[in-house]
Amino acid sequence: MSRIFLTLTVILFVSALSAQKLHSPDKNLVLSFKLKDNGTPVYQLDYKGKKVLEESKLGFILNDFFSFSEGFSIIETQNDTSDSVWKSVWGENSEIRDNHNELLVKLVHQATNWKLNIRFRLFNDGLGFRYEFPQQKELRHFIIKEELTEFNLTGNHKSFWIPADYDTNEFPITTSRLSDIGKLIDEVRKEPLAAKAPSPNVAVQTPLMLKTKENLYINIHEAALVNYSAMFLNVEGDKFCLSAHLAPDKNGNKVYFQTGNVTPWRTIIVSDDARDILASNLILNLNEPCKFEDTSWIKPMKYVGVWWEYFTGGGSTWAYTDHKDIIIGQTDYSKLPPNGHHGANTAHVKKYIDFAAKHGFDAVLVEGWNEGWEDNVAYKKEKIYSFTKPYPDFDVKELQEYAQNRGVKIIMHHETTSSVADYERQLHEAFRFMVENGYNSVKTGYVGPIIPRSEYHDGQWMVNHYNYVAKTASEYKIMVNSHEAVRPTGLCRTFPNWIAQESARGTEFESFNGNHPEHTTILPFTRLVGGPMDYTPGIFQGDLSVYGTNKAKLSTTLAKQLALYVTMYSPLQMAADLIENYERFPDAFQFIKDVAVDWDKTYVLEAEPGDFITIARKAKGKNEWFVGGITDENSREAIVSFDFLPFGKKYEAVIYSDAENAHWQTNPQSYIIKKKIIDSKKKLKVRLAPSGGFAISIKEK
Amino acid sequence: MSRIFLTLTVILFVSALSAQKLHSPDKNLVLSFKLKDNGTPVYQLDYKGKKVLEESKLGFILNDFFSFSEGFSIIETQNDTSDSVWKSVWGENSEIRDNHNELLVKLVHQATNWKLNIRFRLFNDGLGFRYEFPQQKELRHFIIKEELTEFNLTGNHKSFWIPADYDTNEFPITTSRLSDIGKLIDEVRKEPLAAKAPSPNVAVQTPLMLKTKENLYINIHEAALVNYSAMFLNVEGDKFCLSAHLAPDKNGNKVYFQTGNVTPWRTIIVSDDARDILASNLILNLNEPCKFEDTSWIKPMKYVGVWWEYFTGGGSTWAYTDHKDIIIGQTDYSKLPPNGHHGANTAHVKKYIDFAAKHGFDAVLVEGWNEGWEDNVAYKKEKIYSFTKPYPDFDVKELQEYAQNRGVKIIMHHETTSSVADYERQLHEAFRFMVENGYNSVKTGYVGPIIPRSEYHDGQWMVNHYNYVAKTASEYKIMVNSHEAVRPTGLCRTFPNWIAQESARGTEFESFNGNHPEHTTILPFTRLVGGPMDYTPGIFQGDLSVYGTNKAKLSTTLAKQLALYVTMYSPLQMAADLIENYERFPDAFQFIKDVAVDWDKTYVLEAEPGDFITIARKAKGKNEWFVGGITDENSREAIVSFDFLPFGKKYEAVIYSDAENAHWQTNPQSYIIKKKIIDSKKKLKVRLAPSGGFAISIKEK
Repeated sequence: MSRIFLTLTVILFVSALSAQKLHSPDKNLVLSFKLKDNGTPVYQLDYKGKKVLEESKLGFILNDFFSFSEGFSIIETQNDTSDSVWKSVWGENSEIRDNHNELLVKLVHQATNWKLNIRFRLFNDGLGFRYEFPQQKELRHFIIKEELTEFNLTGNHKSFWIPADYDTNEFPITTSRLSDIGKLIDEVRKEPLAAKAPSPNVAVQTPLMLKTKENLYINIHEAALVNYSAMFLNVEGDKFCLSAHLAPDKNGNKVYFQTGNVTPWRTIIVSDDARDILASNLILNLNEPCKFEDTSWIKPMKYVGVWWEYFTGGGSTWAYTDHKDIIIGQTDYSKLPPNGHHGANTAHVKKYIDFAAKHGFDAVLVEGWNEGWEDNVAYKKEKIYSFTKPYPDFDVKELQEYAQNRGVKIIMHHETTSSVADYERQLHEAFRFMVENGYNSVKTGYVGPIIPRSEYHDGQWMVNHYNYVAKTASEYKIMVNSHEAVRPTGLCRTFPNWIAQESARGTEFESFNGNHPEHTTILPFTRLVGGPMDYTPGIFQGDLSVYGTNKAKLSTTLAKQLALYVTMYSPLQMAADLIENYERFPDAFQFIKDVAVDWDKTYVLEAEPGDFITIARKAKGKNEWFVGGITDENSREAIVSFDFLPFGKKYEAVIYSDAENAHWQTNPQSYIIKKKIIDSKKKLKVRLAPSGGFAISIKEK
Repeated sequence: MSRIFLTLTVILFVSALSAQKLHSPDKNLVLSFKLKDNGTPVYQLDYKGKKVLEESKLGFILNDFFSFSEGFSIIETQNDTSDSVWKSVWGENSEIRDNHNELLVKLVHQATNWKLNIRFRLFNDGLGFRYEFPQQKELRHFIIKEELTEFNLTGNHKSFWIPADYDTNEFPITTSRLSDIGKLIDEVRKEPLAAKAPSPNVAVQTPLMLKTKENLYINIHEAALVNYSAMFLNVEGDKFCLSAHLAPDKNGNKVYFQTGNVTPWRTIIVSDDARDILASNLILNLNEPCKFEDTSWIKPMKYVGVWWEYFTGGGSTWAYTDHKDIIIGQTDYSKLPPNGHHGANTAHVKKYIDFAAKHGFDAVLVEGWNEGWEDNVAYKKEKIYSFTKPYPDFDVKELQEYAQNRGVKIIMHHETTSSVADYERQLHEAFRFMVENGYNSVKTGYVGPIIPRSEYHDGQWMVNHYNYVAKTASEYKIMVNSHEAVRPTGLCRTFPNWIAQESARGTEFESFNGNHPEHTTILPFTRLVGGPMDYTPGIFQGDLSVYGTNKAKLSTTLAKQLALYVTMYSPLQMAADLIENYERFPDAFQFIKDVAVDWDKTYVLEAEPGDFITIARKAKGKNEWFVGGITDENSREAIVSFDFLPFGKKYEAVIYSDAENAHWQTNPQSYIIKKKIIDSKKKLKVRLAPSGGFAISIKEK
């Protein structure tokens, strides 16, 4: 009898627990969680009384396709609240508030007795939740065949998307209704890219930006991607349903998991003001704090480099010789004839060091300095590069001394061509080589399909690799700027030496198939939600036909290039163009020289994804402000309200804007520079040309 | 007109070249090469006027299943001859003669203009040939989908085989006719092993030992397996045809190849005397000479260790604690309760050091010294072990000092559980840790399926891994003894620090499913043809039920265990049993203490695969000789002719043999020890019990 009684008690207790609500601190957002009758956990999200997400399923498929998404009961729920402020090592803001309410639901799967916790954190700007598998007797290692998390939307929202691909995130961004994604995706996927592994189903990448007919802005992404695969979103466009689709390995397994670990946070940022999406710190707040004792060696920086010349069609090459039968470790480069147009030669790099020193840049990136570029065949070849052997015409010692005497750093370059296991073999030696030779930062690259040949760029193994490189680099006090890596998820909070990433379609594509004028009005709402991007702006000479046969033309005006230093947040900013082009436009170049790369405070003044962005930022520790404004293919009038400035003082503003006749296609280099005295009560109207922009530097008078 | 004339000339020229013959120095072997009418290269091998191999095809399937095995023409052929003697760093013989005739055939594939060379080397004891892809304009990187090399036998030979499996070579050996392999293979494959990846077709592993009805002995294997996949042999049993079957990766690619490289040598050792197979140095001769400037640090050795106790069922464990929720780098072992039966504890290891010092052993192997064993789950878990963090009860510094003071080395153990990418990440630190703590050798282990999860034990990537470990170890002056690695192919000549391998069913299986009494009469004809094996003999207490619940019984007499120290060649020999068992049989143990591990000269006195082996060896640099003789399940009388001894001197021989009532099943510990004075004219008859053996140590009187 007592046994039956006990069972009944438990059931009643569970029933009472099974529906849970959590409110954001400002009460605008409400998270509802419950178990359905069949024991399936579901959640729902409301904003200001309206649904953002319909009831959406949670759970997994495990091991041999065992459904771990029903038959649960609740063991216990816990609530918590938190309100704190933390200081960033670098960032858009020097102080960040983390104010959230938390709900932890502890579940048990009745058939197996396996335990699963789900932790929700609700902020004023959105929701984060993750799965936690506690250590438990009955379960230790398992394979996640799929995560079943749903994001069931309420309508056919406008979507800013790129197709799901396990090996690349360099697609141009498409804007369409959810229901049109399925119709458009095959065409979009035709874009030629260095490595492609399209998902078999209709799916898109995160951060996914959405806008409802009621002008609600929704951004779905993830935070703290550690020891897990990146999440894509399956799209059932007719039902407005999104669901998680994890990057697999080539054996079809998504994640190899051990209890005692947690999944990344699934994030939904929500606002009825698009500016709040850009201003959100939700993803950073969901990442672990930095554990480095000393962060003084981590320094935001502006750089120039031997780089754009490889894309212009002017003939400069990464490779030292035209001989292609290279066997790393055996080939003696000193016996090979140089090709005569190798970019990373000592004399040429010195010119860049001189230029950087003269104009106050922190560093010079040099690509093509090391052995192996002649035969950099991805996937088929494993030992492609040495990361410790320079080409014969690149004098490491001489250049480091030359740079050091001029107060300039050289940025190391590790293009792996995705031969990742071999890179890991060389990693410690490569970092030691850097330390011995005065390098303190490295740009890594992952062009092409991955070796180990079971892996994709966005799968768990590679996620672990990128994190391993960032962590190992920190042990050598080295900063990392990774290109072609998985999209960021705010891990730069935990590893602030992971100073930037590419992980999207950057400026280099302006020399291939081009970027659309609206591209940079969307990126801050998508890719940059996860972390800073090394977009490498600053191209003044946009018509590449001047160099040779490349007919590519830049998709912006020159003034818009300046604006990008403010609108595309990064603590690492390149002035990507050739020296000669900056020397042709010294007055415009002055903005790039002046603009800060680290900030006390950021003010999003105007924003609409796909249309325009205007942002103002206060330079860190200085009474200097910089404003950037951009538009898409349409000209517009921006209104800059200077009320972000301290009240009562006078400031000198230098305004770089499109000239009246400027146009990205026909007259991109036409700009005007004006000086004005302003104060915090002033408002400024600025006209932006089609794909134009403006930039303002402000100093105390 | 002139064009047609030229074409005709070339065809005539090619025709004249198309049939080639090569003779062995003693003329017994004849290699014939030709192009068939369709331009397919074929070869044939004859021994003393009789065919060993019928006409057999050469070639490849490349890239997208393109047939690279027909449509060739001959550009040029070259002949060469060589006769030299080289000194081994260690081995069965201190000097080795390399006497061969060579034929190099340079081919061009007419449709593609791709070039392929085939190099044949014919020795008195067999043939080696390999494919060489010269550097060339039209071809640089390609994928080998299959190698098509055939070995077309002349009849239904007796075969000593294990089934092709990409992940293991630990099967028991089956003896059958070629035509029966297909019928037997599925049953054989049921053997439970830690990782299995059976080939989809009927195929066997090399070294494959064959015996014809005319008593010709043929051994097929490969030499110098570098940057290539291991070769299996497809068996068409009814046609007596064998063909190459390379280990794939999980994408179905066999080899990723770059021109300028060569394949391993395909080897066919042939003789009408079985002893010649064991005496052959063909495989060593086909490997590259050692390039180490200093080899003084490479030392053959005899060792004991904390090892067999993990297999006896006596309760000793590799793991320190019973707590299994281990996360390497996070778990603090000092806070976990010890399980009380951890083998590698300081006090216990000291006993082994004392024992080694007392009895003149060079080293003590200690398994289970490092963090991670509690949760050593293969494939699902990647970060399993630390190779630099000892368990709390294993005091590295104290033990090294203790060992050093007693003139004993401790052998490092790196079980990877096949988490290979993670091992490579730790490799340099692990080797530095060894050097800092006085270790000069390491036993590596590869239990379970491989991470990277695209790879098998025997594929190109893992082949490169094993070689990388051997090469990297040499930079730290570390010797390597690899277990569960791909079968050896004579690379110990090039890397003499790769002192031994397991790569077959060793003594540990005596504690699981057992070994057959004939097992060690076959292994020297199969596995050991590629290089020395760490067989870990010396089990005196063969009935494991004395320890607990393990009912396993050793498959030999005690005297046969002694004989294995001579018949199973290795420069690394373990006395594998527990101290207490050696203390129970001090007189028999004396042979293990006395027996050499490095040799000036080896004399194969009697041999028949599957039946018996008797070998005598002269200790390197000493006037001491050791003889070992073993038999299969049948008793026999061995006849030892001492004519290998220098003429005219008297020697004292100590003869350890089976007592009259000895029998491996009923009375394995019954042995007799006799001393005799002998000279080179003496012949000795020794009776061997069923699965018995004998051992003789000989010193100058």
